[in-house]
Amino acid sequence: MFSQPEKIGFDLPAWLNRFAASYEATTSLSARMRFVILAAARNVQEKTGGPFAAAIFEIETGKLVSLGSNLVSTQGLSILHAEMVAIALAQRVLGTYDLGAVGMPEHELISSVEPCAMCFGAIPWSGVHHVATGALAEDAIAIGFDEGPKPADWIGELESRGIRVSSGLQRESARQVLQDYIEDGGHLYSSREG
Amino acid sequence: MFSQPEKIGFDLPAWLNRFAASYEATTSLSARMRFVILAAARNVQEKTGGPFAAAIFEIETGKLVSLGSNLVSTQGLSILHAEMVAIALAQRVLGTYDLGAVGMPEHELISSVEPCAMCFGAIPWSGVHHVATGALAEDAIAIGFDEGPKPADWIGELESRGIRVSSGLQRESARQVLQDYIEDGGHLYSSREG
Repeated sequence: MFSQPEKIGFDLPAWLNRFAASYEATTSLSARMRFVILAAARNVQEKTGGPFAAAIFEIETGKLVSLGSNLVSTQGLSILHAEMVAIALAQRVLGTYDLGAVGMPEHELISSVEPCAMCFGAIPWSGVHHVATGALAEDAIAIGFDEGPKPADWIGELESRGIRVSSGLQRESARQVLQDYIEDGGHLYSSREG
Repeated sequence: MFSQPEKIGFDLPAWLNRFAASYEATTSLSARMRFVILAAARNVQEKTGGPFAAAIFEIETGKLVSLGSNLVSTQGLSILHAEMVAIALAQRVLGTYDLGAVGMPEHELISSVEPCAMCFGAIPWSGVHHVATGALAEDAIAIGFDEGPKPADWIGELESRGIRVSSGLQRESARQVLQDYIEDGGHLYSSREG
């Protein structure tokens, strides 16, 4: 007998929206990145998923639109990387599947770590105009995560589509979150983990 | 004031689960592909999203685990390509974020059209062992869809990860669904559509 649910949903961790409410809009990209890295650290501390967070901001005002964290293991869905959660939340908050729709302020995605192949591919569909990332792919790989088959020149691919990229911001503090996760016995989810 | 929902969810179209219930398990890959292409045609006919469907099957028995269709425009979320919907549904049905977990039967993803860059990147995380696709990327591009920055040798990338790929099955009938969508005035959602 075939049976699948008629709807699918996922819950955010209880700490996440409270944490997001503590953010004060700032035009400093560094301050926004710091906030996202702190969210990743909190996701580790609360054991609500992998050591990754991502958020969508209005570029000009620095207003926070959405905050997501990695929820793969706690929600049981492999697509719930932090970037995907942040993109979906922002689209629901703004009521559109295109964050770059005409008449809207420009938006950016800030992620504590470079996007994997899936999240990279999701960026052009999200409508963001700018992407900023913290730790590099090699930092995630160094602790055993898999970034997937992403084009070597992923930055060039996004920029050729009019999406600016700022890579490696506050890399050391973002990398520290990855390190803390592993030292804390964090689960390396990935397919075929055996 | 920051406010985002505490949960996020999406509904499947009313026709989808009824349609899925009509499927009878078959060990014929052709029959499974035909079923998925019919689902894509139905998504067009019902105007519940883009001209794409995807499903997860048990490879050996042909049992249907989940059926998804493209829900981007109707659910307002850019990540809801058919493949992502099918993967998420299957993981919820089976209670795991890894469809390739030890002790489980092998699963396959069948999609009416070649995956875009995002869905391609999602495949290694899903745990499927086989991917079968209908229409080619060039068929989707020919009617105005964007496949995103996918590696030229996307098949080789998956196969090097132990995921077999069967490409271009029943291409003509899958392509017909794309054609019907456009002739029917279907919406070409994509970021920056203006």
